Amino acid sequence: MNRKTVFFITGKIILAEAAMLMLPLLVSLVYHDGMTSEFLIAAALAAVIGFLLTRLRPEDQTMYAHEGFAIVALAWIALSAIGALPFCISGYIPSYIDSLFEVVSGFTTTGSSILTQVEALPRSLLFWRSFTHWVGGMGVLVFVMAVIPLSDRRSMHIMRAEVPGPIVGKLTPKLQDSAKILYTLYLILSAIQFVLLICGGMGPFDSAIHVFGTAGTGGFSSHGESIAFYHSAYIEWVITIFMALFGVNFNLYYYLLLKNYSAVFKNEELRWYLGIMVTSAVAIAINIMPQTGGFFTSLRYSAFQVSTVMTTTGYATTDFNLWPAFSKTILVTLMFIGASAGSTGGGLKVSRLLILAKSSKNEIRRMLHPRMVTAVTMDEKPIPESTVTGAFMYLALYVFLAVLSLLILSLDNFDLETTFTAMAACFNNIGPGLGVVGPTGNYSAFSDLSKIVLIFDMLLGRLEIFPLIFGLMLPSRRSITRALTRSGARK
Amino acid sequence: MNRKTVFFITGKIILAEAAMLMLPLLVSLVYHDGMTSEFLIAAALAAVIGFLLTRLRPEDQTMYAHEGFAIVALAWIALSAIGALPFCISGYIPSYIDSLFEVVSGFTTTGSSILTQVEALPRSLLFWRSFTHWVGGMGVLVFVMAVIPLSDRRSMHIMRAEVPGPIVGKLTPKLQDSAKILYTLYLILSAIQFVLLICGGMGPFDSAIHVFGTAGTGGFSSHGESIAFYHSAYIEWVITIFMALFGVNFNLYYYLLLKNYSAVFKNEELRWYLGIMVTSAVAIAINIMPQTGGFFTSLRYSAFQVSTVMTTTGYATTDFNLWPAFSKTILVTLMFIGASAGSTGGGLKVSRLLILAKSSKNEIRRMLHPRMVTAVTMDEKPIPESTVTGAFMYLALYVFLAVLSLLILSLDNFDLETTFTAMAACFNNIGPGLGVVGPTGNYSAFSDLSKIVLIFDMLLGRLEIFPLIFGLMLPSRRSITRALTRSGARK
Repeated sequence: MNRKTVFFITGKIILAEAAMLMLPLLVSLVYHDGMTSEFLIAAALAAVIGFLLTRLRPEDQTMYAHEGFAIVALAWIALSAIGALPFCISGYIPSYIDSLFEVVSGFTTTGSSILTQVEALPRSLLFWRSFTHWVGGMGVLVFVMAVIPLSDRRSMHIMRAEVPGPIVGKLTPKLQDSAKILYTLYLILSAIQFVLLICGGMGPFDSAIHVFGTAGTGGFSSHGESIAFYHSAYIEWVITIFMALFGVNFNLYYYLLLKNYSAVFKNEELRWYLGIMVTSAVAIAINIMPQTGGFFTSLRYSAFQVSTVMTTTGYATTDFNLWPAFSKTILVTLMFIGASAGSTGGGLKVSRLLILAKSSKNEIRRMLHPRMVTAVTMDEKPIPESTVTGAFMYLALYVFLAVLSLLILSLDNFDLETTFTAMAACFNNIGPGLGVVGPTGNYSAFSDLSKIVLIFDMLLGRLEIFPLIFGLMLPSRRSITRALTRSGARK
Repeated sequence: MNRKTVFFITGKIILAEAAMLMLPLLVSLVYHDGMTSEFLIAAALAAVIGFLLTRLRPEDQTMYAHEGFAIVALAWIALSAIGALPFCISGYIPSYIDSLFEVVSGFTTTGSSILTQVEALPRSLLFWRSFTHWVGGMGVLVFVMAVIPLSDRRSMHIMRAEVPGPIVGKLTPKLQDSAKILYTLYLILSAIQFVLLICGGMGPFDSAIHVFGTAGTGGFSSHGESIAFYHSAYIEWVITIFMALFGVNFNLYYYLLLKNYSAVFKNEELRWYLGIMVTSAVAIAINIMPQTGGFFTSLRYSAFQVSTVMTTTGYATTDFNLWPAFSKTILVTLMFIGASAGSTGGGLKVSRLLILAKSSKNEIRRMLHPRMVTAVTMDEKPIPESTVTGAFMYLALYVFLAVLSLLILSLDNFDLETTFTAMAACFNNIGPGLGVVGPTGNYSAFSDLSKIVLIFDMLLGRLEIFPLIFGLMLPSRRSITRALTRSGARK
């Protein structure tokens, strides 16, 4: 592995974090909440580490998939380790592991919290906590790529490792342009939602917090009651719709801008994503009607909940712990399905499941008609064999790591519902689960060991397993990386 | 599809059931429990239907995999439909669906019961209920094959469809001989256990019942408290060990008889099966020590519970609902792993999971070294590509059908632990789950719709999905069956 390149780019990213930390510092100055020194210390540390790492200017700039994985893995861990400091130093979250949990939950857009009283936090800390959602959603490295010029070959490996989903599409011939377009679209959608929330009477600070949480499909709120705090059907619908929008592959918005409508209409993942969402929302609305009254009130709650769970955001407007088992089973199923590839959402991703289902169907057909050779297609294009294999491997690793996590978590002796949904909510980057970690609960009761397992689950979910496993593999030879590139492990 | 052959062989099997029904009739005469007419009616009906179907003597005796699937699917449904009659007619289980649930649970060796008071049943009904375990364990059709001469080509398709596991090994060149050997070994092991139980002071009737439940890995007992009733460490250990023995591939016993020890020692499934069992038993024993006292008492409980769950038997010596979450999580994981292929146990089967794990590992290695071509091997022999694909398809269909079942079951609005483990316990042919369906509970509280879903789950689990789905597929052309044979869907 080309270690110098890995450290060099990781250094750049840590420098970028030093710059990001200026934002909460500004918030602290505006609201006079006395958190300036905390953010200055963290920013200074980031600046020093980043400066030292970027001194290691590599002569050899070669980079393969392995370097891409290693950069993404290292960068995410470094960002979280430094980003946790303000919480810890300020004393608002005294334990470093708890602080790390909170920040990893932020960057990975999970939204699981160990805080028992969110409102007790100063505004600048609340802002930083939510801002990590916004940055982590579209990707820290994608952001850096939009700013720093890198050769296309090099960027592609980073992009593949960080952007979720089984297939990464190039929007433009030049990747730096793609990254810029993605962030511009992200910014525009966020701005529209901000204006709509302000129009609904939400204050500018709260609006910013909830835009960060929605856009990154994260779910941190400035209120313990989450969105239920506002008692506003308008705000709930705005957030419902924007969560759903941020769960769509961003490439489709670019196609819309280019007036390439057919690419959008032909997109199978979009059709399934919306189809599952609408069906689930209606089914739950009918199921909870006896509890909530009229169909439209039910639909408001169910649409919000389906949108928040399927996009893996994790906001709450009501305690769905109290809903009937049928609705809860649908929600748990949606937790695993997740959002679209190339969106800010987590989970297994609709397109990955589509690939699995299609190739299963194809295999069964092949059992029945062995002479019929049919390729698995998606959006009318054949899916490469390596993508199909990659999806099956992903599922196998996912199940294995999930069972391993469950076994360790169960040492804390919570009921199975709590243990299982805590793992599912962290691995799929959702936030709240059921039982103790339900929408009105939090993760503070878990042991440190469990919190570390959940921190790994969140990172594994956001970075989609391979970068963490391959990137941190130490016995790394050039041949391995070249092999990875060729086999298109992440194509 | 060659329908005449399908009906002809199904007819033979129904005739065999008429003969089987003579056994509980005999029990009824011995114990004077007044159930003679009930068994006579069922036997007479079976005789008439069987006689009529066997009149359809087919001229064309061709048979392919599709016919094998259809025969197994039809035969199992017919056996259960007739076998349920004595319970229903006698009035001890007034509802026909409940009776069907109980008998399907028997034949599929699940052991889930809707009875709230087992002891209230007359002895002949208890005997019949447990005898279905013994017959269903090794396979109804394998039994018929041992008795009726069929051409090898024809038997192979039936054997493949009924014997659990991804690979069916031929013991002898002639399949009828293989079937005879299997049933002889089964009988010998059962007889040894019977003698050992009698030596432990268990009465002959109870011993027979518990041998049926152990040998078939079923789990029906003559006591509501199951094995806990006897308060005997000796009986518990005998049953623990025999459950584990009946969860081993029967081919290995034949190799032992032939003194082919290397085939046994090289068997990877056996090593993993025993390894998982011992590790789990020790881990649980340590985990429950604070509750039970000394290590050896803990080990007695944990070894019994691990053996009963992993072999999918379902006997109970204690209420493991009250155990810590770590132990419960291990048990739920074991529920899915299941026993060995070619045994009487259910679940996904150790060898199927081994194939999935090995081919996943192989694919990951291939990503890293694309020029290294390595075949997936098992017991030092390469696994055919179609077996690997079959295992992945099985997993995909399994997950899909499990989620579908869960959604319907959750309409009954039990807690998630109950709903999930009820599905898992029926699909994997275990019996008791957790919560309402825990070792001290039963399935009577479920709605008829849920019971029908669970009946299908039990059949899908025992027959391993493909026969039920392919066998009952109506638009069946000769080409499909020939295709199935060639692709080795069940090889």
